[in-house]
Amino acid sequence: MIKACFENVKKSRPLVHNITNYVTVNDCANVLLACGASPIMADEIDEVEEITTICGALNINIGTLNKRTIEAMVKAGKKANELNHPVTLDPVGISASTIRINTVKRLLGEVKFTVIRGNISEIKSLAIGEGKTNGVDASDIDAINDDNVSDAIKFARELSKNTGAIIVITGKIDIVTDAKTSYICKNGHAMMSDISGTGCMLNAMLAAYICANKGNELAACLSCVTLLGVAGERADKSKGNTSYRDSIMDEIYTMTVENLENGAKYELFK
Amino acid sequence: MIKACFENVKKSRPLVHNITNYVTVNDCANVLLACGASPIMADEIDEVEEITTICGALNINIGTLNKRTIEAMVKAGKKANELNHPVTLDPVGISASTIRINTVKRLLGEVKFTVIRGNISEIKSLAIGEGKTNGVDASDIDAINDDNVSDAIKFARELSKNTGAIIVITGKIDIVTDAKTSYICKNGHAMMSDISGTGCMLNAMLAAYICANKGNELAACLSCVTLLGVAGERADKSKGNTSYRDSIMDEIYTMTVENLENGAKYELFK
Amino acid sequence: MIKACFENVKKSRPLVHNITNYVTVNDCANVLLACGASPIMADEIDEVEEITTICGALNINIGTLNKRTIEAMVKAGKKANELNHPVTLDPVGISASTIRINTVKRLLGEVKFTVIRGNISEIKSLAIGEGKTNGVDASDIDAINDDNVSDAIKFARELSKNTGAIIVITGKIDIVTDAKTSYICKNGHAMMSDISGTGCMLNAMLAAYICANKGNELAACLSCVTLLGVAGERADKSKGNTSYRDSIMDEIYTMTVENLENGAKYELFK
Repeated sequence: MIKACFENVKKSRPLVHNITNYVTVNDCANVLLACGASPIMADEIDEVEEITTICGALNINIGTLNKRTIEAMVKAGKKANELNHPVTLDPVGISASTIRINTVKRLLGEVKFTVIRGNISEIKSLAIGEGKTNGVDASDIDAINDDNVSDAIKFARELSKNTGAIIVITGKIDIVTDAKTSYICKNGHAMMSDISGTGCMLNAMLAAYICANKGNELAACLSCVTLLGVAGERADKSKGNTSYRDSIMDEIYTMTVENLENGAKYELFK
Repeated sequence: MIKACFENVKKSRPLVHNITNYVTVNDCANVLLACGASPIMADEIDEVEEITTICGALNINIGTLNKRTIEAMVKAGKKANELNHPVTLDPVGISASTIRINTVKRLLGEVKFTVIRGNISEIKSLAIGEGKTNGVDASDIDAINDDNVSDAIKFARELSKNTGAIIVITGKIDIVTDAKTSYICKNGHAMMSDISGTGCMLNAMLAAYICANKGNELAACLSCVTLLGVAGERADKSKGNTSYRDSIMDEIYTMTVENLENGAKYELFK
Repeated sequence: MIKACFENVKKSRPLVHNITNYVTVNDCANVLLACGASPIMADEIDEVEEITTICGALNINIGTLNKRTIEAMVKAGKKANELNHPVTLDPVGISASTIRINTVKRLLGEVKFTVIRGNISEIKSLAIGEGKTNGVDASDIDAINDDNVSDAIKFARELSKNTGAIIVITGKIDIVTDAKTSYICKNGHAMMSDISGTGCMLNAMLAAYICANKGNELAACLSCVTLLGVAGERADKSKGNTSYRDSIMDEIYTMTVENLENGAKYELFK
């Protein structure tokens, strides 16, 4: 399953349209190239429909949204829907401001997303307005562990049912679920929370993975989450957080099917 | 002194709101994480008050200002003042354009800053409109050396008196002063001027340091300046400027109290 | 020829004004520093004339253009022309949207460019509206090889005649030409297409090179293209694409005249 999804990205080299924040945009570009996809970034409202038309998927990230780019997100999202292109949403720091919450509400109302990914606090805020915010990081109160993971999955399934999107929740334990089938994944490393942009990178790659694996979206998401997690485990942690960030991207670039399959730690949740 | 300031950041993990340029914004995010703080970047005028409210400090950097973000800076700065959050200012390339000069004047009029940091040319321009500009770098004419450092300190103290802010001037010799007490610091490395963003990174960290060390702001600034300088000395210079930039950030991440205290070269100026 | 051009940049340290995309802007800043130049980024319409006035050259890159920055590009370009500053154009992804095509048309009508550089698809689109687009990458259909290089040069010379600009086309084989004299250059490495921003970096450096080598622009462009290519060959490819990007920039920083001259693979096209 993982093998096919991983190879399909490299074979089809999906072109991904990103409307994303200016903090980690360079990482998103290079990680897309690393996994075998191709990036284009464009947020001018007068061109986003054309840009999304030539792409295979659209990645929307609200990290440094502004009134101009919000309109571009909505317009691009609608066009992508019209063309049946998959669309991913990263509700970065959703509960940190009213305009973020309202933008996500508007996006959910006007655009159908294929995947919504965030940390547990962001996903809770998106679903029920209850997540605590610590800026763009998950709150400790919300953290998923072995004890509460079944509650989190139940809640994520409900959200999947309501939105029609695959829900991906990342943290120490990752959840990948649609309304019926759920996986938990335990790859990754604690040090990943000491670098900016792992979530943004994952969303960009999710867009590439679902684009290259149509009809097999849940497996595509699981493979992609696993890819980042295994890369995070394999990457060099010895020098510091900035080297570690670069090393994760390098590991994605050099990842083999064997290393990915051997490293993957996921299970079907029953 | 340095020890306590350094550890307080790691203990309290301050969340810093950054309205900063899009050139070095990723470095600011990762260096905040490296020193133990947490970053959020947001410049949409309709959300900056809310964002700054959930943060502990605000960092304003005019590097790639535009008319939209200038309004966000003013609004966020006023809100931070209202909440008694510390605010830092980086007047990047202030004398390069009228709108930069006017923006800094307006900011100084409407917002009370806790710390203002720049190179000597920027600080001179800010204070008396006389610094020479070489784009965003200090002019050689203005460079601080052992002969003119006492003049520079006198001038910086005056500026501190007039603004109520701690003044930090960085260069070959760094100055950290308020209206009464001054330190000079001689850490750092010449190669730091061959990379983009060391100043921006320092300002972001200064916001975290003063937030985590309330009532002890001057020591906090000195500790933070020392941290960057010692990291710059320890970092790997052998490969080139881009590796060096990453290595500085890695050294900040892995810095121990011992290495920082042993490496620090500062003295009280009498 | 290469030697003098290379050394002139380091001696004169040209200050380059960049209006460029937010994806690779940090790389542009650091690569300018790496080659011995100095960067300033500014796109606010009310300051671009002043900024460009204090600089030696202007680099315009349409990568993430928007209606606000388009006006800044035109204004800065006109001012640079008035001051006889060299101006470079990077028509990133020109055929991906109407606003990109129209912006380039408008720029070509209102601003005289010293150098226009793109991949073969971008340059074809710019000239005759016929290049295929694969987002921001060249289409395979358009790729230059030994068989069709003379056609590409003929076409590039025609474009040079019509625009008055030196035309630089980068790919497996690079072309550097004005209306009369053409060079082909075979430095570089296939892995350079797996990182974001090599084209953007080259344009920024081209601005520095033509600024520091007035009256000798064609040689300056050839030297600069060779510099990036040789750096790309020398850089460490063993870890992955992100390390490779950094290593290219490091190699530019540490490049010696000897290594550049020994590594250069170019010839006059007859």
